[in-house]
Formats: sequence, structure tokens, C-alpha cells
Amino acid sequence: MDLNAILNEINHEIRPLLGQGKVADYIPALATVDPGQFGMVVTTNDGQIYAVGDAEQKFSIQSISKVFSFTLALKADPDALCRRVWREPSGNPFNSLIQLEYEAGIPRNPFINAGAIVVTDSLISHFGGQDQALSALITFIKETADTPDIEMDHKVAISEMHHGYKNISSANLMKSFGNIHNEVDTVVRTYFHHCSVTMTARELARSLLYLSHHGTDPLTGTQHITPAQTKQINSLMLTCGHYNASGDFAYRVGLPGKSGVGGGIIAVVPGKMTLAVFSPALNEYGNSFIGTQALDLFTTKTGFSIF
Amino acid sequence: MDLNAILNEINHEIRPLLGQGKVADYIPALATVDPGQFGMVVTTNDGQIYAVGDAEQKFSIQSISKVFSFTLALKADPDALCRRVWREPSGNPFNSLIQLEYEAGIPRNPFINAGAIVVTDSLISHFGGQDQALSALITFIKETADTPDIEMDHKVAISEMHHGYKNISSANLMKSFGNIHNEVDTVVRTYFHHCSVTMTARELARSLLYLSHHGTDPLTGTQHITPAQTKQINSLMLTCGHYNASGDFAYRVGLPGKSGVGGGIIAVVPGKMTLAVFSPALNEYGNSFIGTQALDLFTTKTGFSIF
Amino acid sequence: MDLNAILNEINHEIRPLLGQGKVADYIPALATVDPGQFGMVVTTNDGQIYAVGDAEQKFSIQSISKVFSFTLALKADPDALCRRVWREPSGNPFNSLIQLEYEAGIPRNPFINAGAIVVTDSLISHFGGQDQALSALITFIKETADTPDIEMDHKVAISEMHHGYKNISSANLMKSFGNIHNEVDTVVRTYFHHCSVTMTARELARSLLYLSHHGTDPLTGTQHITPAQTKQINSLMLTCGHYNASGDFAYRVGLPGKSGVGGGIIAVVPGKMTLAVFSPALNEYGNSFIGTQALDLFTTKTGFSIF
Amino acid sequence: MDLNAILNEINHEIRPLLGQGKVADYIPALATVDPGQFGMVVTTNDGQIYAVGDAEQKFSIQSISKVFSFTLALKADPDALCRRVWREPSGNPFNSLIQLEYEAGIPRNPFINAGAIVVTDSLISHFGGQDQALSALITFIKETADTPDIEMDHKVAISEMHHGYKNISSANLMKSFGNIHNEVDTVVRTYFHHCSVTMTARELARSLLYLSHHGTDPLTGTQHITPAQTKQINSLMLTCGHYNASGDFAYRVGLPGKSGVGGGIIAVVPGKMTLAVFSPALNEYGNSFIGTQALDLFTTKTGFSIF
Repeated sequence: MDLNAILNEINHEIRPLLGQGKVADYIPALATVDPGQFGMVVTTNDGQIYAVGDAEQKFSIQSISKVFSFTLALKADPDALCRRVWREPSGNPFNSLIQLEYEAGIPRNPFINAGAIVVTDSLISHFGGQDQALSALITFIKETADTPDIEMDHKVAISEMHHGYKNISSANLMKSFGNIHNEVDTVVRTYFHHCSVTMTARELARSLLYLSHHGTDPLTGTQHITPAQTKQINSLMLTCGHYNASGDFAYRVGLPGKSGVGGGIIAVVPGKMTLAVFSPALNEYGNSFIGTQALDLFTTKTGFSIF
Repeated sequence: MDLNAILNEINHEIRPLLGQGKVADYIPALATVDPGQFGMVVTTNDGQIYAVGDAEQKFSIQSISKVFSFTLALKADPDALCRRVWREPSGNPFNSLIQLEYEAGIPRNPFINAGAIVVTDSLISHFGGQDQALSALITFIKETADTPDIEMDHKVAISEMHHGYKNISSANLMKSFGNIHNEVDTVVRTYFHHCSVTMTARELARSLLYLSHHGTDPLTGTQHITPAQTKQINSLMLTCGHYNASGDFAYRVGLPGKSGVGGGIIAVVPGKMTLAVFSPALNEYGNSFIGTQALDLFTTKTGFSIF
Repeated sequence: MDLNAILNEINHEIRPLLGQGKVADYIPALATVDPGQFGMVVTTNDGQIYAVGDAEQKFSIQSISKVFSFTLALKADPDALCRRVWREPSGNPFNSLIQLEYEAGIPRNPFINAGAIVVTDSLISHFGGQDQALSALITFIKETADTPDIEMDHKVAISEMHHGYKNISSANLMKSFGNIHNEVDTVVRTYFHHCSVTMTARELARSLLYLSHHGTDPLTGTQHITPAQTKQINSLMLTCGHYNASGDFAYRVGLPGKSGVGGGIIAVVPGKMTLAVFSPALNEYGNSFIGTQALDLFTTKTGFSIF
Repeated sequence: MDLNAILNEINHEIRPLLGQGKVADYIPALATVDPGQFGMVVTTNDGQIYAVGDAEQKFSIQSISKVFSFTLALKADPDALCRRVWREPSGNPFNSLIQLEYEAGIPRNPFINAGAIVVTDSLISHFGGQDQALSALITFIKETADTPDIEMDHKVAISEMHHGYKNISSANLMKSFGNIHNEVDTVVRTYFHHCSVTMTARELARSLLYLSHHGTDPLTGTQHITPAQTKQINSLMLTCGHYNASGDFAYRVGLPGKSGVGGGIIAVVPGKMTLAVFSPALNEYGNSFIGTQALDLFTTKTGFSIF
């Protein structure tokens, strides 16, 4: 299969759609991103890289960082974690707070904000502090992305803090149930910082190869997590990776994936390859409008759905 | 891979667990089923059948019937259906009614009861009445299961009617929003009747081969649905097939599947095979306790997860 | 205090407002009522009657009938009733169903629809059937209104049945918890029939004198309920008598009262008098727009608030 | 009527009940209060004082302070306030957060915690800071209680801060909707401080005389609020003054009132007198167990219900 040709086809087919969707505008640092960008990268388990468009453009990975933080937390203390966050889809966002309250402060899964905040809290406890947790996370991303060039964007993180009252609200609610162990301020600040990491589509696709190869980096041989844990992360991405459009993404694309409001989406073809797309304009569910279309086209053209 | 040996291993390993879980007891007809039964069948796309235990025992397929009714409705009128039922996981059952009310009577997916009731309503409209809809459904099951020996258990259906106030409640709520087109009584009666179909694990595994082969029966060559529709059904089974334990089933088993309170579970290995297990005692989420364990063992032993 | 003069003042002051609000239009029989009507009656405990406007116009009392049915049920079996319906305000209507589900099928108070349906169910059980219950209710209203001329409007009742899916939904939900003892159809039909009673403002004001006189009709001396039960009904009308505007009515008018979508509102000045107003156009909360204004003016002019 | 004799009777009748209920124990400062205390005071509009039991014991007034802060806010800026907090009962506490979210951060009434936090926020804005707002509140209480001896208990306030995650959660949720204008930390700290005021039953009864006399202190002649505002506060106390037992309190006692978890309850007989009771052990709804009984006995013996 000629993946170069397929990526070029996709690039050609999505061009007329550029301009649809809307860039995230709740913080200034994200609102000023050029919405006309599109990049897409495929990295295969044997190390081939196929890229098209703005594949080398750094962007804010936002919620895609939850995959890295959850992986790190699974490595650190899997047993504790599974008592503090469920692994079920969360239904409609309108009832996120009632669900947290009804279910005694245990969030539904690690990919909704409340769940990722608990994961962050567990990393702070495990590594001994905010700086140590962030440092461990950046080190992990650098290793998996095979590049020293990974940084957080403090301006974005601080801007999020100033508009993050809903996240601070849910963190306090979980704290009231004893499911946040560190200071709420510290936890939320750490959470916003790890969301502010900037990466390129090429780096993202490279960094997630361990998820298409049973937990072991196929190029370096480093085992990051067990095959069973890899299956768990992939299944969680499939059922919970795209906010309230997770079912729709599974239905249309048919691959485990995770999106971020910065316009990135990553996806995994188990046993074969990883994908990363970047296009900043979002659909009504907060997922990249063009990115979702591009991945839909990819599985349609290649048949690489898991279903 | 020696699937016979693997099924025998599984049969051996789950025997000590028989006795755990609890048979559904909200209607007499289900409560009297022997909880000590276990049967498991694998049918491959090339027609091989591997079976162990009570594979020839007829049981009430209950919610597994939703896969057949949804398939039939997709064939009949896919466009209308997608405006009347979403395809997202539903979150916690405690908020099913508020979700219906909040979302204007549109149920979250075709595998929760409210969604299957809308699907049933669409079949009644399409086929011109309750009897015609049920007849079309039974004909479809007979064809896919390759046997004339498929029947409904009217005693079970009537017993469900007498304890089905919650379903009648949600059907009336949807009717108040205009999302039930026929009389509520007719729709709910039809729904309970199609849930009362009895089948064996062998028949179930055979009947669902179209789902592991892009919509076409691999043995007869009959195309039932399109490849895209097949992907949709499989993705819905993965995200929504096991009530409030759908995420957990995806996490542990890693296959599209659908369970019923009669103790059956079916699962699909896309491109390869289908599975059916039967064991009546249920876990706290209403899924077969032993059946879930057996499928977990199967994907662990074979590596046949989609992730 | 010259109550005649005050009623004339009110009549004069509200005239310019006629035309605001909107007649209930979910059933044809109510939609065709002339919105330009206004009538108001005060009946004092010593038998004086002060009336202005359309005081002799029959109209559908709708939810005001809940006061009569609850009074009758309190007489019949107060102990049973207090286990089957709470006496707390219900908050926002959007969560009525979740509240019912969360609180095991026990409605919050007898003046929301679900509560009045339980009250109706208890009357059917107590009197031995639908006809007997309705007959007892009509007899009670005739006695308190001191007139033989009280009837139900079957056309309205049947029309409500055909649009009452939400009420049927909540009745089935309560039935699933065992809090409806008779057939749902029977209970809901009875409920809609007692809501369809037609009365004039003059009859209504007369009929409720027992609530301003400790449970005993001040003109005939007949004791209908105890002083304690009277206090309970008045307090329930104050906290729960006007749907989601109960607090606002208490805040502005400051009297126990009960409204109906037919445009009627009754109110009680404990120890002194009763009031009934009629004007069919409703405000956004489903209470008579002019009626609420008129009662507000009345307590402002007379100082007859309980606060 | 011999109110001394009635208070002595009540004191005698409730003595056998002492020991029932449970002192608030979520913060140490409240948990150590002697549960065996009971005091009751009646102050009439002509200045007579009737007292029994521990009428001179200082205790934490907690939520009773919401009456003072709301009065002060009504004086300061009634128009702004009525757009920022509704005046409807809130239904069940389980849905407080969903209600806030559903209703765009506008709390249901000023006597639930979220509403009182908005009131506090408005006082901080009006008076120009936390210290100024608290100072104005203490000054107001001193004036109405006719004593210079009113203080806050900082130990209690700080202890509340350390266990107040649910309140901080709801304040952040309201902040996300723009309905908190100052820093969340400042607002919540101020809120907990004004709840920590300690007073005796005698002081409380004295201080609220303006509510039984149309907004004007009957002994000094000072007008604090208008008659209309007085009616509003009394109606809000009746519909919303006792958490999820407000309807029950109205039903049993039949007077506007407000309770606090410190064991105090105040009540108003409009036009006649005010009452304050103190007994620290609480019932399941968080209201003084003995205090509620004592007020029930009082209205039963005197007939001084508003209904």
C-alpha cells in the first residue's frame, strides 16, 4: 500500500474544507493560531515515516498529554490508580459534576478533565512534587519522541489557570471526597502545565509507537508498559478519547485515538502504525474538524480500522 | 492455533468459578434457569466450529436481540434512524431518564433499552405492524443462523410486560417528544417479544458471522449490510454493548460484544471469527459473570484483541 | 376596609395588562378560551362576597383540583399518604424524573403532577374504583362550594389523555417502584378527569373557606379536616403551589395559593377570607399572568400577607 | 397568654428528648460542644423578653448569619442582587451543582450556601473589601442585637476553610459563569468568617425584631429595610430556611425561620414577636433536633402559626 500517495490524496481532498470549524478561543494564546494549517504523519512500527503538510509545526498538544500522563501513572502505581479513576465513558458533559458527586468523587475515566486531574495528583505524590512530576513527564515524552526538543508553554499554562474555574471547581469537589491528595492549586497548576507541552505531528506520531507495539518501542526495544496496559490505554482511547464525540469517532474512524483543543489528534493502528494530524479549527465537540475528516478518509482508503 | 485446546483450557479454568454471580430474577421465567451451565462456541469465517460445554442449550437472548433489530433497521432506513438515536455511550444508568429529557427524547445509542425501543418502533413503521416486524426479525435470524428452528418465548415476553414499567416510562417520555411513532403499548410489546427469542450459543455464533466479514455472510455470500455499516455496529458494540460495564469489557476483553440478561454474550474478532458464550449467573452490571471471564481468558490466550 | 373599592381598583389597574401572557395551547379545548377575561372574588369567613369582572364564568380548574383531592385523601388515610408523598418543594421541573428515580418513586409533594397522581391512586384504592373516587370528589366539591352545579368536562379530560405522555411516563416510573397500586391507565385517566372540573371564581372562593377557618366551614359548621391538617395544606400551597414560581409567589403575594393552567388561582388569608381569580393568559411559569398581578395588588393594598 | 408558663412547659416536655440527634462533627470546634444544652427566648414587639434554659450561652450562629448578610445586601443594592440569585426553593441537595450548572451559575436562593456566597461577594464589592464587608456586618448585628459584644470565632472560620472544598467548588463553578466578581478565596474566606459569629439566643431574638415589625426595629424606631423587603425575607425563610426540610418545617411549625448547624434556629411571628432556640444536637437534615421540637410545641400551644 502506497501510504505516501494516500496521504497526498487526503491532503488534496481536505484542502477545500479548510476554513470550516473554529479555533479554540477561550484563551488568547490559542485564539491566535492560524486556522489554515494542516499536517498529517504516519509512522510505522518498522520506522517508516510518511508526512504531508504542516508536519513540522509545533502546536499545543493539550489533552493529548493525558495519554502520556496516564501511561506514566500506570507505570508508577497501577493498583492505586484503578481505585481512584474508573474506565467507563462519561456520557454527556452536562452532567459531569453530578456524576462526580453521585459517584463519590471518582471520575469516570482518565481522559476527561477530572480524571486527568486525579492522574496528575497521583504523579505529584509519586514523584514528590510538582516540578519532579513535570520533569518526569517531559523526560518520558523526550524519550518516546526521540528528541530533546520538548518544552512546555508557560504562557499558555498560566492563561489556562486564569480561565480554569470549572476544572478548579471539579478538583475541589474531588478533594471534598478525599480523591485529591495534594493541594488543589498545585494539582491544577501541574495539570495545566502538562497540557501546555508543544510538539509537532511528526514528534507525536513517533512518541506513541509503543501503543501500536504492545507497550514496547519497536525502534529502541524499550518496554514502557505491559501488553495488557497497552490494550487498556487503547481501549480507553477508543471509548473515551474524543469527549462527547467518542462514539462518533469510533463509528466513523474506527481507531483508538485522542484529541486536543490545540487541533491535534493521534490515532493507533494496533500492530502496525501510529498517526498524528494537526489542524487547529475545531468542530462543535472540540475536536479538530479537518483532523477528524482526514482520519476518516485514511481508514476508508486503507481499511485500517480495528472493526 | 489450536482453538479446541484453548476452549478446553478455558472450560477447565472457569469450572471452579461456577456458582458465583446471580441469575436474573426479576421475572419468574428467567429466575428458574440452572445457574451451573456454561457453553462457549467459536465460529471462524471459513466455517470451522469449535464448541465446549452447553453449546446446544437454548436460552433467552434478551438484549443480544438488539444487534439483530438494529441491523434490520439499518438495512431498512439508515438515514431516518440516525436522526432518532445517537451513537454515543450513555454514562451511568442513574441518569438515563434525565438524559432522555435533556436531549429531547433522543436516546444515546441503539443498545440501551430506550434506543432499542426506538429501533423497534422504526421496524414496526417500516414493516407495517407489530406482527410483520417480528416476522421479519425472526426470518432474518433464521437466515443468519442457518436454521429454521428460531422461536420467541411468549411466556417470557408477557412476564417482561408485567414488570416493564421503567421501559414503558421511558417510551412514554420519548413519545412526548414525538420520537415514538406508533402506540407505546404496541412498541413495548414488540420490543419485549424480540428480546424473548431463544437460541443456542452455536446458533448465535453462526448468525453473527456477517459482523466479522464486512457485512457479508462468509459461508453463503449473502450481503446483509455494507462494510461501513458493519464497522458502525462493531464500534457501537465496543463502546455501548455491556451497559455500564462497556468500558471495562473493552479494557479487559478488547472485542466488540453484546450481552443479555439471559446469560449470553456474543463477540466479534473482525476479519476472523465470532464467539458466543452462555452462562446464566450475572455480575453486578447484569452481564454473564462466567461469560465475561471466559472471553477475557480467550483474548489473553489467543491475543485476538482488536487493540 | 372597603373590599369592594379595592377590587374595583384592582380591576381598573389590571385592565391595561390584558393581552399579555399566553393561553395554554397544548390541548384544543383550552386553547380556544377567550384570553381577555378577568374575574376576582373574595369570600370572608363571615360569608360576605365581593366580586368583580367575570366572576360567574365557568373555567377548567385543572391543578387547583389537587387541593380538593389532597384534602379528601388526608381525610381518608393520612398515615398511608405521608409515606407515599413528601411535603418538600421540588426545585426545577427539569429534574422531576431524576428526582423521582433518585428518591425511589416518592414524589416531592402532592401539588406536583407526580404527587397528585399518587394522591389520585390512593383515592381509587380507598373508594374502591375510578368512578367511586371521582364521585366522592365531585360530592365533596359540591358540598364545599354549596352548589349542585359541579361537573367534569370529559372532552378536556380525554384531550389531556392524548397529550399526557409525560404524566404517563412518571406514573409508570412510580409504578416500577411500587408507589402506584392500581393500573396506570386507570390512575392517569382518573387524574385527568378530576383536573377537568369546571367552576366559577365565586364557587372556588366559597369552596375553600374551610382552609381559612381551621378546617371547618365557617358558614355551615361542618368540620372537613383538623386544624393541623389545614395548617399542612396551607403551608404546602405556600411552598409548592405555583410550580417553579412558588417562591416568587410567596415573595410577592405572601399568601398560600394554588394555580391551574386553566387560568385560575386561589389564595387563603388564614383566619379571614379566601380569594379566587380567573384570567386565562399564563406567564412563563404556567400561572395566570393577570391573576398573579391581581393578587399581588390585593396584598399590597390590604396588607393581608401572612408575613 | 402566659408565655413564661408556655416556655416552662416546653422546657419540661423536651427534657426527655435531650440526647437524641447528633452534634455537627465535620470540624473540631463544633464537635466539642455539649449536646445537652437547650435554651429558648421569645422577644415581643413591645420589648418583653421570655427566656428559659441556656438563653445566655454563646454559640456559632452559622447559617443564621445568612439572614443578616442578605438583609445588608438588600439594603445595599437590591436590584443587582435579584439578577444574581433566585428566590426559589432548591429541591434536593444532591443536585445542587447540576442546578447551578444548568442555571448558568445563578443559585436558587440566598439561603443555600451557593446563594449566600453570592450575597457575600456582593457585600465585598459594595463595601470595598473583605474587612470592610465583615466590619459592616458586625456593626449591623451589634445594632440590631443592641449589644457591643458580638464577635467572630476565627478558629471556627479557619477550620471551615480547611473542610470547605464543596463550597469552594461551587464558588469556582459560579465564577466560571461570571457570577462571582471578587477572588474566590477572598469570597469564601469572608463567607466562613461571617458564619462564625457567636451570639446567644437572647441576642438573636432581639436582633431580628425588625423582621416581625415590617423592617423597622420596634424598640428604637430605626428602619432597616422596607416592609416589602421584610415580606421577601420572611417568605424566603419559610420556603428555603431549613435546607431540605424547609417544607417539613413550614408544615409542622408554620413560621418563617432559619437554622444553623451550630444548633440555633430563629423564627418570626409577623407583627408579634421573634423566637430563638439553641440546642446543638442536629436531626438528619442538619437542623437542631430539640429546637425544631420546641418550636413545633410553641406554635401548637399558642396557635401562632401564620397558616
